[in-house]
Amino acid sequence: MERPRHQGMARNTYMRWRLPLICLLWEAAMIILFGVFVRFGPEADAHWEEEKHKMNLTSDIENDFYFRYPSFQDVHVMIFVGFGFLMTFLRRYGFGAVGFNFLLAAFGIQWALLMQGWFHSFQNGKILIGVENLINADFCVGSVCVAFGAILGKTSPIQLLVMTLFQVTLFAVNEYILLNLLHVKDAGGSMTIHTFGAYFGLTVTRVLYRPNLEQSKDKQGSVYHSDLFAMIGTLYLWMYWPSFNSAISEHGDAQHRAAINTYCSLAACVLTTMAFSSMLQKKGKLDMVHIQNATLAGGVAVGTSAEMMLTPYGSLIVGFICGIVSTVGYVYLTPVLESRLHIQDTCGIHNLHGMPGLIGGIVGAITAAAATEDVYGKEGFIKAFDFTGSYKTRTPSVQGGFQAAGIVVSLLMAFAGGALVGAILKLPIWGDAADENCFEDDIYWEVPEDEESDAYHMHNPDKPASP
Amino acid sequence: MERPRHQGMARNTYMRWRLPLICLLWEAAMIILFGVFVRFGPEADAHWEEEKHKMNLTSDIENDFYFRYPSFQDVHVMIFVGFGFLMTFLRRYGFGAVGFNFLLAAFGIQWALLMQGWFHSFQNGKILIGVENLINADFCVGSVCVAFGAILGKTSPIQLLVMTLFQVTLFAVNEYILLNLLHVKDAGGSMTIHTFGAYFGLTVTRVLYRPNLEQSKDKQGSVYHSDLFAMIGTLYLWMYWPSFNSAISEHGDAQHRAAINTYCSLAACVLTTMAFSSMLQKKGKLDMVHIQNATLAGGVAVGTSAEMMLTPYGSLIVGFICGIVSTVGYVYLTPVLESRLHIQDTCGIHNLHGMPGLIGGIVGAITAAAATEDVYGKEGFIKAFDFTGSYKTRTPSVQGGFQAAGIVVSLLMAFAGGALVGAILKLPIWGDAADENCFEDDIYWEVPEDEESDAYHMHNPDKPASP
Amino acid sequence: MERPRHQGMARNTYMRWRLPLICLLWEAAMIILFGVFVRFGPEADAHWEEEKHKMNLTSDIENDFYFRYPSFQDVHVMIFVGFGFLMTFLRRYGFGAVGFNFLLAAFGIQWALLMQGWFHSFQNGKILIGVENLINADFCVGSVCVAFGAILGKTSPIQLLVMTLFQVTLFAVNEYILLNLLHVKDAGGSMTIHTFGAYFGLTVTRVLYRPNLEQSKDKQGSVYHSDLFAMIGTLYLWMYWPSFNSAISEHGDAQHRAAINTYCSLAACVLTTMAFSSMLQKKGKLDMVHIQNATLAGGVAVGTSAEMMLTPYGSLIVGFICGIVSTVGYVYLTPVLESRLHIQDTCGIHNLHGMPGLIGGIVGAITAAAATEDVYGKEGFIKAFDFTGSYKTRTPSVQGGFQAAGIVVSLLMAFAGGALVGAILKLPIWGDAADENCFEDDIYWEVPEDEESDAYHMHNPDKPASP
Repeated sequence: MERPRHQGMARNTYMRWRLPLICLLWEAAMIILFGVFVRFGPEADAHWEEEKHKMNLTSDIENDFYFRYPSFQDVHVMIFVGFGFLMTFLRRYGFGAVGFNFLLAAFGIQWALLMQGWFHSFQNGKILIGVENLINADFCVGSVCVAFGAILGKTSPIQLLVMTLFQVTLFAVNEYILLNLLHVKDAGGSMTIHTFGAYFGLTVTRVLYRPNLEQSKDKQGSVYHSDLFAMIGTLYLWMYWPSFNSAISEHGDAQHRAAINTYCSLAACVLTTMAFSSMLQKKGKLDMVHIQNATLAGGVAVGTSAEMMLTPYGSLIVGFICGIVSTVGYVYLTPVLESRLHIQDTCGIHNLHGMPGLIGGIVGAITAAAATEDVYGKEGFIKAFDFTGSYKTRTPSVQGGFQAAGIVVSLLMAFAGGALVGAILKLPIWGDAADENCFEDDIYWEVPEDEESDAYHMHNPDKPASP
Repeated sequence: MERPRHQGMARNTYMRWRLPLICLLWEAAMIILFGVFVRFGPEADAHWEEEKHKMNLTSDIENDFYFRYPSFQDVHVMIFVGFGFLMTFLRRYGFGAVGFNFLLAAFGIQWALLMQGWFHSFQNGKILIGVENLINADFCVGSVCVAFGAILGKTSPIQLLVMTLFQVTLFAVNEYILLNLLHVKDAGGSMTIHTFGAYFGLTVTRVLYRPNLEQSKDKQGSVYHSDLFAMIGTLYLWMYWPSFNSAISEHGDAQHRAAINTYCSLAACVLTTMAFSSMLQKKGKLDMVHIQNATLAGGVAVGTSAEMMLTPYGSLIVGFICGIVSTVGYVYLTPVLESRLHIQDTCGIHNLHGMPGLIGGIVGAITAAAATEDVYGKEGFIKAFDFTGSYKTRTPSVQGGFQAAGIVVSLLMAFAGGALVGAILKLPIWGDAADENCFEDDIYWEVPEDEESDAYHMHNPDKPASP
Repeated sequence: MERPRHQGMARNTYMRWRLPLICLLWEAAMIILFGVFVRFGPEADAHWEEEKHKMNLTSDIENDFYFRYPSFQDVHVMIFVGFGFLMTFLRRYGFGAVGFNFLLAAFGIQWALLMQGWFHSFQNGKILIGVENLINADFCVGSVCVAFGAILGKTSPIQLLVMTLFQVTLFAVNEYILLNLLHVKDAGGSMTIHTFGAYFGLTVTRVLYRPNLEQSKDKQGSVYHSDLFAMIGTLYLWMYWPSFNSAISEHGDAQHRAAINTYCSLAACVLTTMAFSSMLQKKGKLDMVHIQNATLAGGVAVGTSAEMMLTPYGSLIVGFICGIVSTVGYVYLTPVLESRLHIQDTCGIHNLHGMPGLIGGIVGAITAAAATEDVYGKEGFIKAFDFTGSYKTRTPSVQGGFQAAGIVVSLLMAFAGGALVGAILKLPIWGDAADENCFEDDIYWEVPEDEESDAYHMHNPDKPASP
């Protein structure tokens, strides 16, 4: 069924006109759409001075900016440095990892502001944005970064932009179904970001299956320094994940609680990752792939429940389990996925975002179903699940059911969307590299000559030595 | 007119007494001056407990610390990691890039606290400092970091300290003229930081022209890993620029707005940079130099207008244009500046800070001139431009005129100051390297031997192998 | 007295069962203890909604989360990226530096939450945690990271976990004696974190003395890129140290003041470090070891006094002195400590944390003793030193005496605890490496082959080239 693709089509990777054209046209479209639709929200508008009086606010500190901006910046670092550097582990794909992540995220956040704006912040024909919208746009792009991990090294920048366009759109639809129609809680995005992003990306890479990828097997590994660069990404994701999961929670105790739960879950996850990394290797040595990735699974898996009363020990349990599941996945599942199901998952996103995302959805459903007024307090209970208006009568167990439904919807959207987008990306017009040129920056980037021997006696062909 | 300098003067780079002497004497001077002049501002002084009652503040959260400290830390990262690592792209000048930037910035912030303090925070013979002063000191040093980019690799640490001393002084004067005399708005420093810093640095490097610099041409390039280190700098500048442009804006909506505008401008800038980087290269490949630098031009160019009602789509337009201008500058203008005007601009600051800074000044003038009470609201209008006291009757169009005058003043100060400082730095007493030793850490740093072949069979000459 | 250890015991470093067992059992113990003891504090609990009414708080912004979370995140970065990358300077121990630091810190913060909780946040049989507890847990682990610096490259991950278990315990006891029994001020931890951590680690490394360590001398140096990685750690420690020293100070002016004092001290420290680094080397060249470490001594040395009215110029003086002391220590003291006292201090923590920590304790004692109601204001004076309740009548000079006693207690705890823990770690069951294998990742990590020559013609032994 699969056939060798792009035999001898290295010429096809020529980006000179296609990439600029897409970048410029799409950015022009962004400008027009922003011009028509996007305006400052009330707290960012110069009219806020008057708004404050109306809302009876006595201090500027009540501006949402001060509640959320520090978390926003942490999330921003996670998207650009976190995901970007996490993927630099490949020996010769560091430029592509950081650079293409930069490109797709910069485009994605603009498109996400529009898509999410139409669904969530649309008033009188305008999208009104504030710091919470910036966070949500970063979140949405986070799910694209996840999917990028599966196809890292095998796609052209144009394919990535096309994928971003579609994935952001589908993300916004899925998010709307979950948050607005199912009234599901998912502040840290176990379902909307990780489950959706991972299974979307896995489906795309399945459709783009390259049977002869072992031709570039020598470039699929890391080198000593590239593993250290990747650790920069890992650590920033790990450290700032409490900000990620708490960034858009309700002001006050919910943000506070989400940060604590995530902190605990991540700490536990490191220990079980180390344990299984050593245990599953004959020589008992630790594997950087696990440390770089599986240590983060605990953050993914409390994405839904972090703002709930999961409690610190509940978080430890979730982190404990996810470090194991994720590491075992890297050792046993990833090879099987490739050999049996033809899913080539460069970064192992199934282990870092897929399974932990599902666990996160399930933990969220259980935690919601187990909620009681006793644990949350009367007011806290209503506030935590927003059981107001038409949801006034919803019970925790019903909420748990809807949460579970949210997982299913996210999976279905991911599979359907991934299949569609994979099919589009399979068209032979996007300039992706031949199998033997995958995982190689040289195709799309000006790469400096190596530093080794020639650093000091390099010859510049353009300038002959003066006589 | 120009003559080969420092022929065979490699010995001259001996720093052992000159550098320590300057560092110790100047730091001692700082201590004395701080002792005479610098005290805690009211919000950092232990008397604040009583001050609070007088000011009728009910909560500690009203302390300016909580409004600005997160932004301050982001700015701090930009100055030390952002600028420092951005300049590590050179293959053998990473220590100098990060280390000298560290040195000049650490000195510069102290001197800036004094200089800016005398102009702006001087009360009853004392300079009263708080978090806003720390931000302003970092800003001031930012303009020195910009100028450093032009002369990177060609100057001794002493020259850098001398330049910092003068440039900080001139910065404070220029800032005083703009903010206090012309009553110009420039919260993100398009004029005071970027335009001034860039043209100052370009003038200095012009005066220090080295006709035989191609002798070290082999060291002016990057290597694979040095380009990745530089991307750390790029990304931190890019991610935290919204904090930079909003750090000293008015509390509330102005800070909020400035962050949003900058976020938008930077996102657009990435796409046009990628487009033109690919388009202007025969093979259509992306160039790391452009990605590392031109993607930031959008942040520079909204430095003046970010806190105004530029609107998100206005920001996108500015970013769109600046990505193009900056990238085109790298490809076509930088070589011409060197060959025709003898301006050797190591990092291309003309493309990243010069032209975008000018654009930023112009955009700010236009945005100010176009302001209306309708757009800002009656109170917001007055607050945004501080049209109070003796400026009560100033109109937007007059404000626009003064903004434009601010650009001209900054340029004149930069040219005059740069010429003066360049002339001082040209004195043959500062220990700069010979042309063939430029861009080489080995001159001023203990450099470890390379890791390659000898990593495991290195010989220690001091300790013969035990028999 | 000392004997060559572990002769030919390279096999012993096999971690496969020991490391997983410890990680899993200890994490399971954490879960049980958290389950029994740890609950959300009132500001992170869903009942806060009701609590707010009782406490008459009108705004969510009064939640401690908003006062401390940005500082917490900065501290978090210091522990994981700061300390982790600072130690990557070794040419072949980058994985161990970042990875083991990650492991011990992730375990340590959990155990610290419990230990510190029992001493400080124990109410009705429960430990109630909030953001301040997270910061304190990070602080506690900071002292373990300090001690790790002394034994870096010479211990197995199991030894590190054992050391963490004991050191965190002793830290909590010492902290309780200082803060609760002696009523000492030490917000930035000059005594509790740095003095204790450093002399604890030095005692441990003394007990673990390896007489034949010169066998791995070739691996004790840096390479060009590893020095740049280390600078990432240095700069993040340097930039975020103002957050470290202000993170748990009283709301308002104390936090504000602590940040300013630290900023000033660190700036001065950079200049004197550079001066002495150049002066103490025959060729006058700067040494990366000093820049990476001694520049931070100024932050250590204002750890106790930063929140007091040390004043900016007082801070400059402290930083001035500590840059000198620390650099001189690296050049003259470290070799003597090794040759005479058999203290092998890999990172030179005695120069960065030991002496500056002692200085910090002394400066704190003096600053406290010199405090007057005139300088602090009547209310500020009481608030700054918490002269309430049973301490109502304590005078500044008495406080100074207790501060000095705190130094002595910290030292005694460090020596006694270090000797005990060193003796435990000397047991030949923990899998540490032979002398010739120290400073080598290969023992405990899967290390990728080097990138040099073989990057493109690597052979995969599992898959013979298809015929």
